[in-house]
Amino acid sequence: MTVTVADIESAAERLEGIAVRTPLIYSSVLDDLAGGRVFLKPESLQVTGSFKIRGAYNLMSRLTPAKKSKGVVAWSSGNHAQGVAAAGSMLGIATKIVMPRDAPAAKIENTRRLGGEPVLYDRYTGSREDIARAIAAKQGSELVPSYDHPHIVAGQGTVGLELIDQCVERGIAPDQVLICCGGGGLSSGSAIAIKARSPGTAVHTVEPAGFDDTARSLLSGKRERNDPSARSICDALQTETPGELTFSYLQKLAGAGLVVSDDDVKAAMRFAFRHLKLVVEPGGAVALAAVLSGRITTKDRTTVVVLSGGNVDTQLFAVIQSENAA
Amino acid sequence: MTVTVADIESAAERLEGIAVRTPLIYSSVLDDLAGGRVFLKPESLQVTGSFKIRGAYNLMSRLTPAKKSKGVVAWSSGNHAQGVAAAGSMLGIATKIVMPRDAPAAKIENTRRLGGEPVLYDRYTGSREDIARAIAAKQGSELVPSYDHPHIVAGQGTVGLELIDQCVERGIAPDQVLICCGGGGLSSGSAIAIKARSPGTAVHTVEPAGFDDTARSLLSGKRERNDPSARSICDALQTETPGELTFSYLQKLAGAGLVVSDDDVKAAMRFAFRHLKLVVEPGGAVALAAVLSGRITTKDRTTVVVLSGGNVDTQLFAVIQSENAA
Repeated sequence: MTVTVADIESAAERLEGIAVRTPLIYSSVLDDLAGGRVFLKPESLQVTGSFKIRGAYNLMSRLTPAKKSKGVVAWSSGNHAQGVAAAGSMLGIATKIVMPRDAPAAKIENTRRLGGEPVLYDRYTGSREDIARAIAAKQGSELVPSYDHPHIVAGQGTVGLELIDQCVERGIAPDQVLICCGGGGLSSGSAIAIKARSPGTAVHTVEPAGFDDTARSLLSGKRERNDPSARSICDALQTETPGELTFSYLQKLAGAGLVVSDDDVKAAMRFAFRHLKLVVEPGGAVALAAVLSGRITTKDRTTVVVLSGGNVDTQLFAVIQSENAA
Repeated sequence: MTVTVADIESAAERLEGIAVRTPLIYSSVLDDLAGGRVFLKPESLQVTGSFKIRGAYNLMSRLTPAKKSKGVVAWSSGNHAQGVAAAGSMLGIATKIVMPRDAPAAKIENTRRLGGEPVLYDRYTGSREDIARAIAAKQGSELVPSYDHPHIVAGQGTVGLELIDQCVERGIAPDQVLICCGGGGLSSGSAIAIKARSPGTAVHTVEPAGFDDTARSLLSGKRERNDPSARSICDALQTETPGELTFSYLQKLAGAGLVVSDDDVKAAMRFAFRHLKLVVEPGGAVALAAVLSGRITTKDRTTVVVLSGGNVDTQLFAVIQSENAA
């Protein structure tokens, strides 16, 4: 299984008019804090509030008519669920999505609203993968994995393709791009595109503490696992171990993995609210958190930060915002 | 005093690299609710969190070196204050801004952070204009009015110029553009640009109830005043009467004025949070509120909505979000 920049360009063509070409934005406050130039790619403004529609649509639109008629099954803590549900509605494909019962209510509710059928399970006792496979087997349906599949990687990689093209359009040569990492679909696909277009640009994954499997795997050279007892505010980034396909690319293309704390993430969400006027979910804020908490040198450098999603419950958002109100 | 589309194009050139070319975004949820296509121009993502930098920089950058050295004085409930302060920092011009003591704390704090000097007064007893004029006279400083000046109108008009150009780039011919209206700088300037480029596109002002002076003035043909006892959640749109210059253009170019309630505005702010992932302030949400509350026909039409700003206190934002949480 390989993914090339040509596959990502093909995905980008397929996504035209389907996914939003999210803008590159900046903030003088952020530039001042970083001591360099920082550009943000807010995939929170994407259809379904995260980048996930890109991979889901890219895969699902390539299914045969026979496969499409059987529906698809996926498992997801929320953002992939919404991406799959929305792609299904656009393509006329029925979608069942196995979701943890404790996923943000907004994500479960939106999955339903977008035409998906959530199947709820207990995150700490059941296996979402087993449940999904059983449904798929019974129905003869295709599974839509959330990261470890070439069409998913190519679809998510259009984020990297777009951002590097947007930099070129503005005459910007980024020194580094920071991308949140759960299973690694977004970061590996983006790394393939970025490195193809701009080999001198470093790509770094960013993970929450406790779910730093990719950072440790990049150091050890093999796929490490997270402690099953780990907890994080970043519901979107709680994978057990890097994907096989995704890690094979990250290993070749990514620099050192960065790790941020939940407090760093909350501070980044407050910064995004106050100074960027953007609603960013915890998992979507880790790359910004890495800049604000100084986990990487930004002084005199040009850094691009992907804000991967904005699907956060009103209640949680209000609590985080008020924890350290000015 | 006249403002032409050439003046607005000149302002746009001057603002290159200073103001953000904010994107046109859309949301399938909003399209479904509206029964047509809706595009949003989020000036909340602009430098200083509102469109006001555009007019302030356009005017202040044209002052003579002698005038620049004397500093400038402005009065503002907040967004214009931040625009003037930021433009001053960029241009090396000292700025004093007369602000109501009850303006959102975030706006006063940000004005200071951006390098401006706030001069606080009581909104219901003092005259901000008198205070500002006295300071300006004493210092020999130029006043930077918040709307009724050709350079301000031309600067704010770059919002309209950009949005109509962005529509053309995408092959969109908008039927109508909805723009919030306080003194009318943004709406009149934008109307000049929009009507020059796309004469068939209707432009409508949107105001909060109690501050519907422009809507009434457009009906009566003369500049009406608001009841001084009126109150609204939209702190950015509380002007007494339309500007002389701005109204002269709105009278020629704008359709009927739309009016929304504070409840409509709160619902729009919740919608922006949940479905657009954008932080929008009350005054910045009135045009979206007009769409969501059905104050204008959007079915089978293409509508562009300007979200003019995102400067809202954390506390107020949290209260509004939780008032009708799902």
